[in-house]
Amino acid sequence: MTFRLDPRLAADTFPVGDFALCRVLLMNDSRFPWLILVPGGADLREIFDLAPRERAVLIEEAALAGERLKALAGADKINIGALGNLVPQLHIHVVARLAGDAAWPGPVWGAGKATPYAPDAAANAIENLRRTLELRAP
Amino acid sequence: MTFRLDPRLAADTFPVGDFALCRVLLMNDSRFPWLILVPGGADLREIFDLAPRERAVLIEEAALAGERLKALAGADKINIGALGNLVPQLHIHVVARLAGDAAWPGPVWGAGKATPYAPDAAANAIENLRRTLELRAP
Repeated sequence: MTFRLDPRLAADTFPVGDFALCRVLLMNDSRFPWLILVPGGADLREIFDLAPRERAVLIEEAALAGERLKALAGADKINIGALGNLVPQLHIHVVARLAGDAAWPGPVWGAGKATPYAPDAAANAIENLRRTLELRAP
Repeated sequence: MTFRLDPRLAADTFPVGDFALCRVLLMNDSRFPWLILVPGGADLREIFDLAPRERAVLIEEAALAGERLKALAGADKINIGALGNLVPQLHIHVVARLAGDAAWPGPVWGAGKATPYAPDAAANAIENLRRTLELRAP
């Protein structure tokens, strides 16, 4: 399957790797440990555009990503969201939240301007994520 | 099973009914058609506190609620979120979004003060939701 990624998602993220269903991206906002999972498949906009079998995989991948990201980041809470008001391609945010972070206790969505990673910091974060999530570069 | 609901969730919502896993609540904010699904079970905080079998049910219930709420509300997009930064009990928001609504295209979380339903409007909304979701009062 050729994986097609919305240009805005591509511009705002770094590729981490591929689970069975979803491509895993790192949001280029160093304020938050923030993954985005994008299920493969054409013209997906809503969770209910997936088949039940795919949804079961999706939530397992989101749970695994969330549990491991929480441990990696030493986070207090994982926030999961599927919004898509701006970017139509179905994508699921998995964000590690720390009490007192730049948006706490509010949502990260709409919480001001992203702080891009420095190049070394991005490479380091991606390497840590690949190890933690057992993924290779897509 | 006795269903225990966080007092803040109870105060902010109306009960709609019970799916197999989740209690369905209507958020008392007439600005948005906004459901909250609360899985039964003690001490759940994160999606990954559920068993995989329960997660598969959860995402089916969220998908069903989302698809039907979207049709009922004539919405443009469904937003789904599990945040829990303020209320620890695991709960999943399923919100129908219309282009131009009070928070569009931002998230509903943190989008200002709720506009409570008038009593008649709440009763009417709950009745419509029970019909649409095939639920009875819990």
